[in-house]
Order: sequence, then C-alpha cells, then structure tokens
Amino acid sequence: MNYRMTVAYDGTRYLGWQKQKESPNTIQQKLETVLSRMAGVPVDVHGAGRTDAGVHALGQIAQFLLPEDTDPDKIRSYCNRYLPDDIAVLSVSRAAPRFHSRYNAREKIYTYRVTSDMSRHVFERRYLTRYPEEAPYIRMLLDIEAMRRAAADLCGTHDFRSFNGNPHMKKSTVKTIFSIEIEENEDELALIFTGSGFLQYMVRILAGTLLEVGEGRRPADSMPDLLAARDRKLAGPTAPPEGLILTKVVY
Amino acid sequence: MNYRMTVAYDGTRYLGWQKQKESPNTIQQKLETVLSRMAGVPVDVHGAGRTDAGVHALGQIAQFLLPEDTDPDKIRSYCNRYLPDDIAVLSVSRAAPRFHSRYNAREKIYTYRVTSDMSRHVFERRYLTRYPEEAPYIRMLLDIEAMRRAAADLCGTHDFRSFNGNPHMKKSTVKTIFSIEIEENEDELALIFTGSGFLQYMVRILAGTLLEVGEGRRPADSMPDLLAARDRKLAGPTAPPEGLILTKVVY
Repeated sequence: MNYRMTVAYDGTRYLGWQKQKESPNTIQQKLETVLSRMAGVPVDVHGAGRTDAGVHALGQIAQFLLPEDTDPDKIRSYCNRYLPDDIAVLSVSRAAPRFHSRYNAREKIYTYRVTSDMSRHVFERRYLTRYPEEAPYIRMLLDIEAMRRAAADLCGTHDFRSFNGNPHMKKSTVKTIFSIEIEENEDELALIFTGSGFLQYMVRILAGTLLEVGEGRRPADSMPDLLAARDRKLAGPTAPPEGLILTKVVY
Repeated sequence: MNYRMTVAYDGTRYLGWQKQKESPNTIQQKLETVLSRMAGVPVDVHGAGRTDAGVHALGQIAQFLLPEDTDPDKIRSYCNRYLPDDIAVLSVSRAAPRFHSRYNAREKIYTYRVTSDMSRHVFERRYLTRYPEEAPYIRMLLDIEAMRRAAADLCGTHDFRSFNGNPHMKKSTVKTIFSIEIEENEDELALIFTGSGFLQYMVRILAGTLLEVGEGRRPADSMPDLLAARDRKLAGPTAPPEGLILTKVVY
C-alpha cells in the first residue's frame, strides 16, 4: 500500500533531507528509522524536494510503501510519538499506487525570509536571515521595486546554470520558474519562489543575487545577461540556509 | 553615569538571568562580560526580573553604572556586536542617578503561551509549551471560562505561598497581581500576568494550576482556599519554562 505524508521540520540541526552514508542526521533517515520500526521491515521514504542542510519545511511531501494496509491516523501518531521534537508529521493518507512524491510534483514553493529587525531575529533567528543592517522597514535598506523587476526576468523556462550550486551536476540545468513574489512587511522581506523544480542551492543563489540588486550593487536589468552567461561565478552569493523553507508542493 | 537598557533574549540555552558561581552561562554574566570589556573596568548589571533557566524576555530592563559618559547608541552597537545571537540589546538610554531596574519597577508583565497545534510547535517549540493533546482550537481541550473565573480570584494582594517555588524563601510571600488576562487564538492560549512582582516559579505554578482548572481537574472556585492554605503541595505543577516570556517592565 502506497502512502503520502506531509512533513514539517526545523532543519537547523540536520544535514538536510537526503540520506547520507556518513551520518544518520538527516530528515529522510529519521523518518525511515521510525517507519521501519513501525512496519517491522525496512521502509524507503521519498521526498518531493531535497532540502539542504539547515533548510526547513512546512509542507514537504513524502511517499512510502508499507507491506500491510495501515490506518493513516495510526501512522501519523506513531511517527509523532517517536520522531524528535523538530520534525512533525502533519497528515498521512493512502495514495494511488503510482503516486510518487518527486516525479508527480508539478510545483514547489520555497519562501526565503530576511529581517532587518534585531529583536525579531532573537526569537526567529532559526527561520529568518538577518540582514546585516538594521532598520524598522526593510525598504529603507533595499530597493524592492528593482528586485521585482529583476525577479520578473528570472521567471519562465531558462537554463539556470548560473544559479546552479552543484558543479558536478550532469543533468539538465533547464528549469521553469512560474513566479517570484516579493512581499514586504515592515522589517521583513519574503521572496516566494514557485517553480517546476530547483537545482541545488538555486533558491538561495537567486535570493543572494536579488538582494544584491536591492542593494544597488547589480543592475535590475542584468538578469537576462546573467542567465545567458551560464556561469555560477557571475551570480550573487548563496544566501544562508536559515531563511529558507519549503512551503508547499503542488501535484 | 547610570544607564538603562532593554534586553531581549531566547533563554533556551541559559541557566537563567542571574549570575551563578558555578557557570558563566547566564544572561547577566554575558552582559557583564561585554560591558566590562567595553568600559575597561568591571561593570555590574542589575535586571528588573530574575528569569529562570529556559525562560525568555522581550522587554527585560537592565541597569548599570559606567565610569565615563558614553554614547548610548555606541553601547548598544558594541553589545550587539559581541553578544551571542540569542541576546539582543534593543535600546540603551541614560537614566536618572537613582534609577534602579528592580526597586523602581512598578509592574512586570509575563506571558505564558501554550499551543495545541503540532505544526506550529515545530517552529515555535522554544517559545511555546505544547499541550499534550492536539486540536485546531485550544478551547476544544480547555474550559477557558472556568480558567478566567479562577484567574479573577487570584488577582489582588495575597500571600502567594502556595505558589512559591522556593522553599528556602525567607522574605514575605505577599505579592499583588493586578490582572491575569487569558487570550485564545485558535490553537494558542496566552496567559498574561501583570503584577508588582512574582516569587520564584510563581508564574509557572499559576499557569500549571490554571491549566488544571481548564481541564476540569480542579474547581474554578477553588483558588481562595488554595491561597488560604499557604501550601505549595496543594497547587498545580510548575509549567515548563519554554512557554514563559518576560514581556514588559513598567516604571
């Protein structure tokens, strides 16, 4: 029987979603350990997105097969009883036999958040990147309209090799970004990326590049050239992981 | 010159506000270390409230003397440069020579927060106590009107010995609570205690007792008898520290 679950996690103390030979300290490994114990046989868990070390999820979707039909509510409460406090299974349901969390995902939504307020940062520092300067309104520090113009040029289907953080990547670096919304709320800026899928570190490199545009260190109209260059060295820095969260996966 | 500062901190990894002989891991010690280095002489820092291990503050007020007149903005930025990420100095100002953060405090406001939503708890678990049962609305689990009735009987000037967590306390256990507001917002309950001052663990014992009233395990009208008994063993448990925050100090 095929199952689908929605998982939320604070990624701060993990090496990311994906299982690693060297360490059990990944979200996937934690879920597999608990589900395997419950099922009495090894269970493989497949996530929709491979979040990196320190990156969070509110709506990660995971999929797994169990040998026996099991009440989804029982799966959920078993997992939540044995998972650490910073991982929570929000829901579990039976899925179609051919449902696959990664291959069937149509859209992934990632949100990158930055704050210019130190007191908020004290309490949300695990989930907000602190902007190096302080101000009550983030627009006092960043030209948000310039960022929106640059963001518009990044939408669509492009070769995102300039924003690819994995130099050993063999597969296509062509991806589609459906939208990049930039929301400001006093001291906070939220960059909301909706796309078919993202390369490794791509969202954080996009965020780092757009922040440079906001600072006036890179022209708002320079994105088409940057995409055409297909050179990671020409894009901005990889923004820190704490501000990034996988918000939602759409099927 | 006498100074006053507003300090916010995430108390999770500290042994509390107050300096201890055994460990440098207290908020007071962290502030004294940084201010002493700045001033070049030992600086004593006095807080308005001695928050316990794991308890947070949004508006702790600290006071200290410096040998030389120093620009408050420079003090603030020096502190924020050298303090750890989970302590922030929000503001610094020159104070009257006789101002004392503890003796002059007229009101202290503490907020105790509980959630019945597991997904919120994943991201705010350092600042929210998780209610042992889950529900989308906290009022499905707790009789909030009963809690409000009990809370009303706790307001006023009373001997709070039944709510005193320090059995070695020699001083008076008479305190004044001006108000206890209980706010509910979907899955979250916030108990807001405003008082002249609080005994050790008093706010958490009050919260633990009021939660028992909400669960129907203790009658709403039992507070007068509990106060009169002056016996800690008859009150409810000390609620966990993570849900507690010193919100504000009024002078």
